[in-house]
Amino acid sequence: MGKSKLTIKGVLQTPLKKIFNEKGNLFHIIRNFDNGFNGFGEVYISTVKYEVVKAWKKHFKMTSNFVVPVGKIKLVIFDDRENSTTKGMLNEFILSVDNYYRLTIPPNLWYGFKGLDEGLNMLINVANIPHDPLEQTNETLSYLNYKW
Amino acid sequence: MGKSKLTIKGVLQTPLKKIFNEKGNLFHIIRNFDNGFNGFGEVYISTVKYEVVKAWKKHFKMTSNFVVPVGKIKLVIFDDRENSTTKGMLNEFILSVDNYYRLTIPPNLWYGFKGLDEGLNMLINVANIPHDPLEQTNETLSYLNYKW
Repeated sequence: MGKSKLTIKGVLQTPLKKIFNEKGNLFHIIRNFDNGFNGFGEVYISTVKYEVVKAWKKHFKMTSNFVVPVGKIKLVIFDDRENSTTKGMLNEFILSVDNYYRLTIPPNLWYGFKGLDEGLNMLINVANIPHDPLEQTNETLSYLNYKW
Repeated sequence: MGKSKLTIKGVLQTPLKKIFNEKGNLFHIIRNFDNGFNGFGEVYISTVKYEVVKAWKKHFKMTSNFVVPVGKIKLVIFDDRENSTTKGMLNEFILSVDNYYRLTIPPNLWYGFKGLDEGLNMLINVANIPHDPLEQTNETLSYLNYKW
C-alpha cells in the first residue's frame, strides 16, 4: 500500500473555528448544512491511551465526522474499495486541539487511530447512523502492513 | 425564585453509558432515537474556566442536550415561562466526567454555567438547530438574583 499526499476519494478535511474568550472557548464541530454532513444518527466520544492503537475498523454504512478537541491522535485510513479511483491509497492524519479540523470518512474504508499525547486523547464522532454491530467489521493490527 | 428538588417542566436528566477499556474508553452522548433528541442542527463545544460563570442565556427555538466529559460544571436553569406549571422554579445541576449524564433543556428557559474544576471544563451541546443569534438573548449576571 502506498502513502500519498493525495486524499482518498470521499475523505474530507474541513477547517473549524476555535473562538477564544477570557471566560472560556468555543469549538465548532459540525452543523446540519456543513460539508461532510450526511444525516445524524449518533454522537459519541472515544478516547485512546498514549501509544495505544485502536485498529482496524471498517463501517459499511456509517459516515464518520471526527474531531479531536483534547490531546493528539494519529488517524490512518486505507482504501481497498474495488471500484475506487484511489484504491490502494493510504492516508495519515494528525488531529489535535492545536491542529483542529473535522475529518470526514465515508463508509467502506479501513481506519485506525493512535494516542499521541501522554494525557487524554479524545476523539468525538458525529455519525450519520447510530452504533450497529452488524454494519461494522474489525480486524487485528496485523491485518494491514502499516508501521504505527 | 425558589430552589426545588423537582425538575423544571421539559428538563430531562438521562443517564449515559461509559464503557471502560484498557485501550481507551467510550462515552455515549446521544442517538437519534434517544429521549430528549429533538432533531439535529449543530454540535459544538463550550469551555468555561475555573470559578468563571457564563450566564444568563435564553434560546427561543433551541433545545440543548448537554454533556460534560471533561472537568466539572455547575449548570443552573430558571423557568419564567408564562404558562409553565413550574414557573418560578430554579434547578441546579452538577455535570462532570464522574457524574456523567445528559441534560436536556427545552427552549425559553434561562440558564447559565460555572467551571468548578481547576483544569479544563468542557460542555458539549448537541442542539436541534444551528447557532442563530436571532433566536437567543443574553442578560448580565445580575439579571437573576442567584448566588453562584
